[in-house]
Amino acid sequence: MLAFDRQEYLDRIENVKLRMMQFGLDVLIVSDPANMNYLTGYDGWSFYTPQAVVVALAQDEPLCVVRGIDLNGAKVTTFLEEANLIGYPDDYVQSKRKHPMDFLAEVLEARGLGRGNIGLEMDSYYFTAASAEALYQQLRSATFKNAHTLVNWIRVIKSPAELEYMRQAARILENVMTVAIDAVEPGVRQCDAVAKILAAQASGTADFGGDYTSIVPMLPTGIGTSTPHLTWSDKPFVKGEATILELAGCRRRYHCPQARTVFLGKPPQKLVDAAKVVVEGLNTVINVAAPGLTCEEVEGMWRAVISKAGIKKDSRMGYSVGLNYPPDWGEHTISLRPGDKTVLQPDMTIHLMPGIWEDDWGIEISECIHLTENGAVPLANTPRELIVKD
Amino acid sequence: MLAFDRQEYLDRIENVKLRMMQFGLDVLIVSDPANMNYLTGYDGWSFYTPQAVVVALAQDEPLCVVRGIDLNGAKVTTFLEEANLIGYPDDYVQSKRKHPMDFLAEVLEARGLGRGNIGLEMDSYYFTAASAEALYQQLRSATFKNAHTLVNWIRVIKSPAELEYMRQAARILENVMTVAIDAVEPGVRQCDAVAKILAAQASGTADFGGDYTSIVPMLPTGIGTSTPHLTWSDKPFVKGEATILELAGCRRRYHCPQARTVFLGKPPQKLVDAAKVVVEGLNTVINVAAPGLTCEEVEGMWRAVISKAGIKKDSRMGYSVGLNYPPDWGEHTISLRPGDKTVLQPDMTIHLMPGIWEDDWGIEISECIHLTENGAVPLANTPRELIVKD
Repeated sequence: MLAFDRQEYLDRIENVKLRMMQFGLDVLIVSDPANMNYLTGYDGWSFYTPQAVVVALAQDEPLCVVRGIDLNGAKVTTFLEEANLIGYPDDYVQSKRKHPMDFLAEVLEARGLGRGNIGLEMDSYYFTAASAEALYQQLRSATFKNAHTLVNWIRVIKSPAELEYMRQAARILENVMTVAIDAVEPGVRQCDAVAKILAAQASGTADFGGDYTSIVPMLPTGIGTSTPHLTWSDKPFVKGEATILELAGCRRRYHCPQARTVFLGKPPQKLVDAAKVVVEGLNTVINVAAPGLTCEEVEGMWRAVISKAGIKKDSRMGYSVGLNYPPDWGEHTISLRPGDKTVLQPDMTIHLMPGIWEDDWGIEISECIHLTENGAVPLANTPRELIVKD
Repeated sequence: MLAFDRQEYLDRIENVKLRMMQFGLDVLIVSDPANMNYLTGYDGWSFYTPQAVVVALAQDEPLCVVRGIDLNGAKVTTFLEEANLIGYPDDYVQSKRKHPMDFLAEVLEARGLGRGNIGLEMDSYYFTAASAEALYQQLRSATFKNAHTLVNWIRVIKSPAELEYMRQAARILENVMTVAIDAVEPGVRQCDAVAKILAAQASGTADFGGDYTSIVPMLPTGIGTSTPHLTWSDKPFVKGEATILELAGCRRRYHCPQARTVFLGKPPQKLVDAAKVVVEGLNTVINVAAPGLTCEEVEGMWRAVISKAGIKKDSRMGYSVGLNYPPDWGEHTISLRPGDKTVLQPDMTIHLMPGIWEDDWGIEISECIHLTENGAVPLANTPRELIVKD
């Protein structure tokens, strides 16, 4: 059931421990489900109750602490010894009197890990303000530090096995996008197009199945294209309107996202012009992005192309992607925007997302790339253009 | 686009303000996406960046503060005046130097709302420890209080319009469960069964479409049935094994969940016996649950039935459901378990979830009920039994 060799997990844990030493951490409490999976293999839709993987310099293996009913899930999906899998009683769940992080604190105390410098992923979705308060209250002799995205930054460089999953996700995505473009037709209900998209995402290919994507299909249509994060309704698609498709393929929790814009009928000239500029900017970035450049340098190349055409975009034009759980497939590390001085390195995977959202219209044509020593290689092979169905 | 009349939103906001007065709060920062939707209509997959609805006693309308690129989404989906919709610049997103909650603090200061008693949803998924820290740092003259699940507790009682969405969700669910039971066959890949389930969830019925569910289809199979939260793989279903289907229909973000267990072949006697007990316990609860009883009293009736049969269950046997976003369709209020002394009231909607998970097998047969003045009415009409496909 493990997605990777045991040794790959051990290497990742070693990398985390090295960073922990650099940051002066004795213990790291990992709450981000993608980071938990990355370090142990743990995989389940259980992140809706508090849980954590604990990495300690003093321990070879991490601990995995989950709700009691998820303990068998940890046995099935992780490589950890059973002694390191711990379930908390169900009366900790959504209780006013006690918090699952109180239980975690007890576990840490019992193993001598409740003191020293403890790192917390302070801005991880499922590490709430109450989770932090509980730990502060229970572990009075510990010193807490914000570990930020320590593990996420290790995830930024993909291993060969991870890249293989990314390529499989790209194969799934190619099917998904083809299905989606076919499905968007005047008179078809948005929800019925989504039904086909979701089915293609799950079925994957004949060789390997698809996994759930961390973001559901986005398909803003009509005036909805002026904003990126609207989901579907049961209204039909309308001739004379654009629909943005932002979709992904997912394989063993690895994502290959992509956006395309479909116009039903004859598109207005401003959309045709915008598409031309967006594709030119995107192609420029794909052609020149290379290890050694910084994120802001790459963004600058994109900005130069669109500025010439009089288009302004304030939001970032790309971010690191890979292993993830809802609500986001982005890794919260690299952003292609001014001020991000991260130097690009081989085996990063980046979603180049040059979306333009104006007052009452918008366009997205995006590409997910694998950065190799020789430059950017798009993972999926979908025509890079405004799709016109007239 | 609004799911409810403007007046219904205004009534909800009034209810929140009454509770705020009881709790001594001047301002409430609402981060839970379901609560944001409940109070304003806001609907978008944008909760992966920090955002909030702010209710202040001193203001008629709430504020809705989202990422800049989601501002048009707020215009399209909420009933609020444009002056109360505020977007933050994109360089706040996943930045090491500043946090979106810094921006929110500035907005509050500018409107004179940055002081007094400010309530925070301390254990809401998307209100991270870092979000709280940012507010503490920026608003030094405010007194922060944990507002817990103040808005969630108002959501517990459903309005007639909400109940109508719940019933529509139940119609969708009935289709979904039928499709799912059909799809689970020896040799069929799990991912291909899920493809059909997801398609049925999105398509809904001919009269109304389905929405994405807050939890993806759960279908632990074989030894996986010993734990509830495993998702699918691309392995085929196997004759001689059980599969648990925990699925929902969703309509305008309102959920009707249900679980059934399917056995391929001739089921072992222990599964047949367990099913009989679970169904008997479930039927008992459906027959006797009524306004005026407490949650723990209802759970006790279930416990009495299964104890006679020698089955023990430590996890709660039900919880409140309705409007929600990933990762959970539960409302984090009522739990049917010992110690929960909440008195049941008319128009609560509760997922009775008597799952049994043993060392290497498990069973789930669940039902979502509408509690009326005359007792419990199951929302969906699916045969309540172990499904045997021999």
